[in-house]
Amino acid sequence: MSTRAGVDLGGTKIQTVIIDDQHAVSAQVRVPTPKQGGPQGVADAIVGTIRDACAQAGVEPSALDGIGVGSPGTIDDAAGTVTQAFNVSPDWEGSFPLAGAIGAELGCATVRLGNDVTVGTDAEFQLGAGREFESLLGVFWGTGVGSGIILRGKPWSGRGAAGEFGHMVVKLGGATCTCGRIGCIEAYAGRKSMELHAQALKQRGRKTALFKIMKQRGRENLSSGVWARALEHEDELAVELIERAMNALAAGIASAVNLLDVEAVVIGGGLGTRLGEPYVAKIRKRMVPHLFVDQHPPAVRVAALGDLGGAIGAALQVPSGGAVTPGLASAVSPG
Amino acid sequence: MSTRAGVDLGGTKIQTVIIDDQHAVSAQVRVPTPKQGGPQGVADAIVGTIRDACAQAGVEPSALDGIGVGSPGTIDDAAGTVTQAFNVSPDWEGSFPLAGAIGAELGCATVRLGNDVTVGTDAEFQLGAGREFESLLGVFWGTGVGSGIILRGKPWSGRGAAGEFGHMVVKLGGATCTCGRIGCIEAYAGRKSMELHAQALKQRGRKTALFKIMKQRGRENLSSGVWARALEHEDELAVELIERAMNALAAGIASAVNLLDVEAVVIGGGLGTRLGEPYVAKIRKRMVPHLFVDQHPPAVRVAALGDLGGAIGAALQVPSGGAVTPGLASAVSPG
Repeated sequence: MSTRAGVDLGGTKIQTVIIDDQHAVSAQVRVPTPKQGGPQGVADAIVGTIRDACAQAGVEPSALDGIGVGSPGTIDDAAGTVTQAFNVSPDWEGSFPLAGAIGAELGCATVRLGNDVTVGTDAEFQLGAGREFESLLGVFWGTGVGSGIILRGKPWSGRGAAGEFGHMVVKLGGATCTCGRIGCIEAYAGRKSMELHAQALKQRGRKTALFKIMKQRGRENLSSGVWARALEHEDELAVELIERAMNALAAGIASAVNLLDVEAVVIGGGLGTRLGEPYVAKIRKRMVPHLFVDQHPPAVRVAALGDLGGAIGAALQVPSGGAVTPGLASAVSPG
Repeated sequence: MSTRAGVDLGGTKIQTVIIDDQHAVSAQVRVPTPKQGGPQGVADAIVGTIRDACAQAGVEPSALDGIGVGSPGTIDDAAGTVTQAFNVSPDWEGSFPLAGAIGAELGCATVRLGNDVTVGTDAEFQLGAGREFESLLGVFWGTGVGSGIILRGKPWSGRGAAGEFGHMVVKLGGATCTCGRIGCIEAYAGRKSMELHAQALKQRGRKTALFKIMKQRGRENLSSGVWARALEHEDELAVELIERAMNALAAGIASAVNLLDVEAVVIGGGLGTRLGEPYVAKIRKRMVPHLFVDQHPPAVRVAALGDLGGAIGAALQVPSGGAVTPGLASAVSPG
């Protein structure tokens, strides 16, 4: 029986799963991403989640075929390092040997690193809403807006930085993005940008229940759940900002489709998964007026693996059966 | 000695070349695209240019290894048809068997059809400014704004309609495009859109020498040469509209690079080729503020094959040595 661990490393949470050779999830553990301790603190927390998940699944960490991690920042799988993962930890400036740190601690020889949205897209392609297609755009609508691309059945990463869908320009001279640029999709649709915008409008006297709901739920940020609750209550400001976000996403998705003519678009991420089909249906509809070949739109679907897609995709990086890819040996410090 | 004909079929002109197995151009003929006679009239004109070019090159049309055509509209190479090439002829509504019509008339068994910008990009990739790269965005800045994409050394056409770069949205709620959509790159940078905009501003009392230069040159439209001359004279309106076009192109190119992270961008087309490096340099510079990975921009180059790139790319569709690709036999009516 083959057993692999997958870790979805995010700015808010670490989600870890154990999957078997049928890709069934036999254990799952979720913890908040530690805000202190820098990259080593994050590595320790990851190790903890893998130990807990292994205990749930009844497997020794050293008996895993391997561990896959999906992370933001700049990933060097061959070197086993993650660089500048500011979203995860503000201290994560330099290059940190994450694969070695995890592998050594757990006595596991195979640790693979990948980009979080790339592995999330791959999971939807292999097992989720994109299974029947050979070309795919995965859009992850959350704190930021990222994407993964599958062309001819294979991930496309360009020179290593493809998929920055969220920073495609949809409005020249438009809103300022959290990245500092102007008119990006993320400036309208990123949860971080939306929160800043909501704060600014509230300070200018607009009424909204968003921040009250946030406090009631004991949150420090406007989480996807907070937005969903405010929409249920038809909070005017929440509705307005989500509409604005969907308009930007629809134009951006249509732009990507006009350029690439992929068969399908899968929408996931915290907000995409939480708001689900009713909102994805609106994006699907609003995309059409911007599509050049509008009589033949791509399929637009909600991510099928939900919250676990990133962790499952991370695990899929490890070959089933535990074969070690040659270039990876260097990524692992012997325990 | 292998000899191939290539035809670049455009809305304004038909450009035909003969190339040898070293890809050297041994003959070139250019005629205006006939405005009467519909698709058959266009086919007759193409046949005429091939006869003339063959005479120049000292080869019988029936001795050609094959003929390649690059065309706008919907291309079905296997069926040998071109459908809805409205840019070429307003009557070109249905499907016309262009390959058969040309091949039968000239006694040439191999006629290949391709999309005009796809073959133009392929020529730059194989022989021109994109030679040293494996991934490439070709941007053709002319009456419209089209593009071709090369990924992993191969053309990417999606489900058949990829490369509609000109209809990526760069300004939500912005200018109306000639395609009827809002905020497309082409609404700002397409020569047709720019001409309509210049006319509207002139009618509102703006001064410009654009239309005077057009008449002096005996043109019916603001050709690339007319724009170039007006820019040389620092015509205020011409400068303003070209600046606006370059801003839209720069944002659109950056958006495509953020999504695909290609190694290089080659800018051709009537305006791109005519205005050349000084203007491409401006686009290169204005792209950077929109690039997410701005410390590592792609190469941005002027198309090296100039006006002949489309015709050369069309010819490259024919295998050198005259081998008939199996699926193509059906595209040719015996003479």
